[in-house]
Amino acid sequence: MDTRPIGVFDSGLGGLTAVRELRRQMPSEHIIYFGDTSRVPYGNRSPETLLKYARQDLRFLATFRPKAVVIACGTVSSNCLDTLQAENDIPIIGVVEPAVKRAAAATRNRRVGLIATRASVNSGAYQRRFAALAPEITLIGRPCPLFVPLVEEGRVRTGDSVIETVAAEYLTPLREEGVDTLVLGCTHYPLLREVIGTVMGPDVTLIDVGQEAARAARAYLQARSAAAPKGQGDVVYCTSDRPADFERMARMFLYEDMEHSPRLVDIEAY
Amino acid sequence: MDTRPIGVFDSGLGGLTAVRELRRQMPSEHIIYFGDTSRVPYGNRSPETLLKYARQDLRFLATFRPKAVVIACGTVSSNCLDTLQAENDIPIIGVVEPAVKRAAAATRNRRVGLIATRASVNSGAYQRRFAALAPEITLIGRPCPLFVPLVEEGRVRTGDSVIETVAAEYLTPLREEGVDTLVLGCTHYPLLREVIGTVMGPDVTLIDVGQEAARAARAYLQARSAAAPKGQGDVVYCTSDRPADFERMARMFLYEDMEHSPRLVDIEAY
Repeated sequence: MDTRPIGVFDSGLGGLTAVRELRRQMPSEHIIYFGDTSRVPYGNRSPETLLKYARQDLRFLATFRPKAVVIACGTVSSNCLDTLQAENDIPIIGVVEPAVKRAAAATRNRRVGLIATRASVNSGAYQRRFAALAPEITLIGRPCPLFVPLVEEGRVRTGDSVIETVAAEYLTPLREEGVDTLVLGCTHYPLLREVIGTVMGPDVTLIDVGQEAARAARAYLQARSAAAPKGQGDVVYCTSDRPADFERMARMFLYEDMEHSPRLVDIEAY
Repeated sequence: MDTRPIGVFDSGLGGLTAVRELRRQMPSEHIIYFGDTSRVPYGNRSPETLLKYARQDLRFLATFRPKAVVIACGTVSSNCLDTLQAENDIPIIGVVEPAVKRAAAATRNRRVGLIATRASVNSGAYQRRFAALAPEITLIGRPCPLFVPLVEEGRVRTGDSVIETVAAEYLTPLREEGVDTLVLGCTHYPLLREVIGTVMGPDVTLIDVGQEAARAARAYLQARSAAAPKGQGDVVYCTSDRPADFERMARMFLYEDMEHSPRLVDIEAY
């Protein structure tokens, strides 16, 4: 038993889809969430800037003495995980490896697609993990830079011609490549599950990286008998821009209202 | 005569459209440009975060001892100009007042539209300037939050169904309101001039805020005999994220290659 919280961070609100999964899978855990809304999005930043931001995000979460940290940002997970793990004693779980394992188990024809931010695809992190864990799989990556701004504008529904046009443009080449499994490599993308599923067709398995990272966190804690004692866990939300804006937007990702208002954090001070 | 440079800043690369105008109108001036590419976009940030970023941007430019600073960011101009002017001795020119004056002179039916970021429209800055300078004009504002990400993805051309659909959605209500003049309240928007013009029709005058701010800067310097001596001015480009990315993107906004590579600036240190 370990009563310490789990830290979770993301560039903005997308990581709340991972929080929802963590709470569903481990309702007794306490969670500290940090969303860097004053510097969102991370998806087109350079690797150097990403590392600088990720270090600040992690230093802030470390002040809560977490038993583990989940990086609920595909871009940071892809670009900075090894460095952050080498620099810190806190166990850190990214989204790449859990998603790669799940995709490798799900694919039947060994053709897997990856959609993610430009920085995630360019990092080569998924290619390297597939090469190490399942070298027989062909990975076809595709940056989808307009998905995050469209989700943040709430353009997520089937019938919205803008998101449907962009999704068709990004995803049709992947469908034509014959992938039978698609990694949604950004925690914003679960909100587009229906739109993406419509383009890809019913036979393609969609892998939600936040859900897989939550599963990996649960397995990690269970293996070390470090789960929280029974009871109702709490979530503390922290944000680097106006808390009211965070709260207004959060419902879209959590599918419920927040119990507590978020705390404002001066992240550049970390 | 004043040989000191003119400072120009923006959240990212959009302000380069204002640099192009400054160089066209005043080719002998030296210009220092800062684009805050590590924290772009500014358009959905809170007023508090905008002011914090704008102060850092201005403190950085102040190290060059400029004779004037042009805020080539509609969002900062709308939210922070009065505070920045009150805090600094440097003459600071924003985009709002020059654009309002030009729109007031251009409109025949006294119905003016404004398209801009959410933070610009919400600031009420344009409404206040019209109320002060031309109270007979009805201003109809419309936030266009997807225009900046679409421009940054290069989705600017007629025939691109995504930008055409979004432009029709944002602009049709303004056309139906009967505006005869439209302020393009963001320095990214000149790249959409053709797309916007197609929706609005040939009888609507489009006001480019960067162009008007450049005119205001020229008038300011001429009135004070503070223009640079004859000769070819130089531009120093500075950026807070990877210089190579800045350089690659800059051509889209400048319509030419940069003479010098940009300098990297740790803006959070200012």
